Amino acid sequence: MKTILVIGAGKSSHVLVDYLLEQGFIKDYYLILADARVELAEKMLQSRENAEAIQMEVENQADRRLAIVRADVVVSMLPAFLHPLVARDCLALGKHFFSASYESEEMRALGNEVAEKGLFFLNECGLDPGIDHMSAMKIIDSEKAAGSSIVLFKSYCGGVLSPESENDNPWKYKFTWNPRNVVLAGQGVSRFIRNGKYKFVPYHMLFRRTDKVRFDDVGEFDGYANRDSLGYRGVYGLEDIPTIIRGTLRRAGFCKSWDVLVQLGMTDNTFTVELPEDFTMRTFFNAFLPFDPVQKVEEKLQTLLPWVDDEILCKLEWLGLFSNEPLPLLEGSPAAILQVILEKKWAMQENDHDMVVMQHQFESITVQEVKKHIHSSLVIKGENRTYTAMAKTVGLPLGIAVDMFLQGEIKLKGLHLPIKKEIYLPILNKLAERGIVFREEVWYAS
Amino acid sequence: MKTILVIGAGKSSHVLVDYLLEQGFIKDYYLILADARVELAEKMLQSRENAEAIQMEVENQADRRLAIVRADVVVSMLPAFLHPLVARDCLALGKHFFSASYESEEMRALGNEVAEKGLFFLNECGLDPGIDHMSAMKIIDSEKAAGSSIVLFKSYCGGVLSPESENDNPWKYKFTWNPRNVVLAGQGVSRFIRNGKYKFVPYHMLFRRTDKVRFDDVGEFDGYANRDSLGYRGVYGLEDIPTIIRGTLRRAGFCKSWDVLVQLGMTDNTFTVELPEDFTMRTFFNAFLPFDPVQKVEEKLQTLLPWVDDEILCKLEWLGLFSNEPLPLLEGSPAAILQVILEKKWAMQENDHDMVVMQHQFESITVQEVKKHIHSSLVIKGENRTYTAMAKTVGLPLGIAVDMFLQGEIKLKGLHLPIKKEIYLPILNKLAERGIVFREEVWYAS
Repeated sequence: MKTILVIGAGKSSHVLVDYLLEQGFIKDYYLILADARVELAEKMLQSRENAEAIQMEVENQADRRLAIVRADVVVSMLPAFLHPLVARDCLALGKHFFSASYESEEMRALGNEVAEKGLFFLNECGLDPGIDHMSAMKIIDSEKAAGSSIVLFKSYCGGVLSPESENDNPWKYKFTWNPRNVVLAGQGVSRFIRNGKYKFVPYHMLFRRTDKVRFDDVGEFDGYANRDSLGYRGVYGLEDIPTIIRGTLRRAGFCKSWDVLVQLGMTDNTFTVELPEDFTMRTFFNAFLPFDPVQKVEEKLQTLLPWVDDEILCKLEWLGLFSNEPLPLLEGSPAAILQVILEKKWAMQENDHDMVVMQHQFESITVQEVKKHIHSSLVIKGENRTYTAMAKTVGLPLGIAVDMFLQGEIKLKGLHLPIKKEIYLPILNKLAERGIVFREEVWYAS
Repeated sequence: MKTILVIGAGKSSHVLVDYLLEQGFIKDYYLILADARVELAEKMLQSRENAEAIQMEVENQADRRLAIVRADVVVSMLPAFLHPLVARDCLALGKHFFSASYESEEMRALGNEVAEKGLFFLNECGLDPGIDHMSAMKIIDSEKAAGSSIVLFKSYCGGVLSPESENDNPWKYKFTWNPRNVVLAGQGVSRFIRNGKYKFVPYHMLFRRTDKVRFDDVGEFDGYANRDSLGYRGVYGLEDIPTIIRGTLRRAGFCKSWDVLVQLGMTDNTFTVELPEDFTMRTFFNAFLPFDPVQKVEEKLQTLLPWVDDEILCKLEWLGLFSNEPLPLLEGSPAAILQVILEKKWAMQENDHDMVVMQHQFESITVQEVKKHIHSSLVIKGENRTYTAMAKTVGLPLGIAVDMFLQGEIKLKGLHLPIKKEIYLPILNKLAERGIVFREEVWYAS
């Protein structure tokens, strides 16, 4: 009987844990689910057989090691900065390691030792990163095998609202994932290459330099560039590609309105304020506008940012930013205060459904010197508040990878991303069995 | 005979050292001038009597302590981050300490111990910070003594070109001080209070939300807000003032053009790039503009930033940013690359003169309930490349403070800024003897 330790019993672990329990029932796995709040783990396991909830303070080394030593493989569902703690213990205790997070520098530093000890460490095996790598590599490898040369690759992904849940909200957006990450998204400078030209886009330009991205069945989205697209040339084996952009999707129109908050500095996370008790939502908003002896807040906004139209004003008003309600948080960074304001308005309601949208756009030159266009799109809607699109698309690939590894279907050793055919192909096939399948459009142009 | 140790023999120490040698000749001081490059110190001292150049690696504790132990007072002219090293040794060895830099958190942590040991540590005793504090406090204390209540305080300072040196350069600007600080100036969020309203201005808004500041004799400047004006309410004893803004001056028109580089992200210092060898100035500039299949770089700039006019285009062209010359640096942050480009164009020439401009604007309500306006302005022009306006206004107040302390004219103990009357008044008087004197305009309005 193989033992799997999953660390972290937050909402995003639910689909993963259910998948491992289901496979474990057939294949005889023992599952240990650890969390600082053991009651979360207990609730998730619902007294299933061959499963055990344990309490773990992950920053306590003894807690960690006592659990890890019992396992064959360890899956970390912790916040990304905690993975190295767990990964180093796995290395010391000779255990395999899996996560859905970006492979960090600290993780990379363990690579040689992982290989020497004959262990398998797999990161970036969730949605984005994860399914994006796998589905892109499938096309890249097949184009290369056909002798085509890929000249353009744009890849977009977003966690958004399912269209039927968009209509009570002029932003057509709610928090379907970590609110803090949404508020801070795009900070830093985005780097990509387009038609052979390097492009650097600072944060304050990001939300107006968007691309339109269309899905046949769910309509139009804004795509803005992610922080670093250049590094993916190496990862994907596209070193000389003239255009590569990775980006994030929001419903069309979102970025232009969000840009107002960016322009004003309300998403700033670099300093904290302590505000007087009489601060209202309106006073807070006004703090990011110039002083004027006559003009109202709304007028000053349109003077400062002349492109702010009635639609945008309406969205800001809907958030309560022009109201005289008390500010819900008086101490913190502007971004932290904005997050609290948004969390009230952008909370998912009982009947809301989320949606994951992903689209790869390729252009390649075939051996016949014809330009081939490939659009490969994924649309997954959430089923309910547990089986959200996000939880499914993060949890299933990770669960499948763990299962396949335990079944000997992945024989690799060392530190990996799911970009090798022997990893991505069977995972994509199993995802397809569960309805996570890309729709491909191909056309040729001279 | 009292011994003064000055650490750092860079250009900015020249006026300070000359002043201390001059006073030392009369008052019998022994001066030790230390630098990692001893030849710089030797050259500055020119074999004067009662003076000695020594070699010091300031990060080597033995080097530091061997010199500090010989001194009565220590003046640090090092980069700001090195002051705490020196200050902690002074504390350990029972020596007084002077600097022209901002009092850091690390420095403040030493405050109690400095007082307990009966030592005197004075920071922020240069130009800005320094002369700004002293001249402002003189007015603040005198208004308070007259029973007036100060309702507005704006304070601006800039290191610029003297008007006769402005005309070979459409920017009317050259580097008269640390180029890196000029390129990065304003980063972070600026905070002030205006008519009782808190104002937070993000970096990408800073250079268009400027105030006009006029000097009778040298014309008009743009003033942009410094990072944190709010903290100065406490320093200046103006806790309840409805308007307080500290800012930086540049020649009128500069900020609007500089804002182009800010908007495009060319002053970003948060990431580094490695660019191909064929990168030209124009390719570099283009990397901050969107891709367009038809438009030229200049056209794309005006599409992206419609307020860019011919005057701004002309300034950018003068910098060579549209040229096909090779980029002078291929590795580094955009800000570092921009700095190298600017250093070629904005270098002070042999006959150029710099200028320091400072203006305090006050409004107070007198006991007769009349509104009183006070504008207090300082204009200092550089004499030559050694006696620059900047070197004089930084070096003289510091030298005067050291001399006064050694003469027993400052009797304070503990950690101080020059905001107490017993410090600022005699220093301002001695500065006036050397032509560093504010011109005051006062008028009353209902």
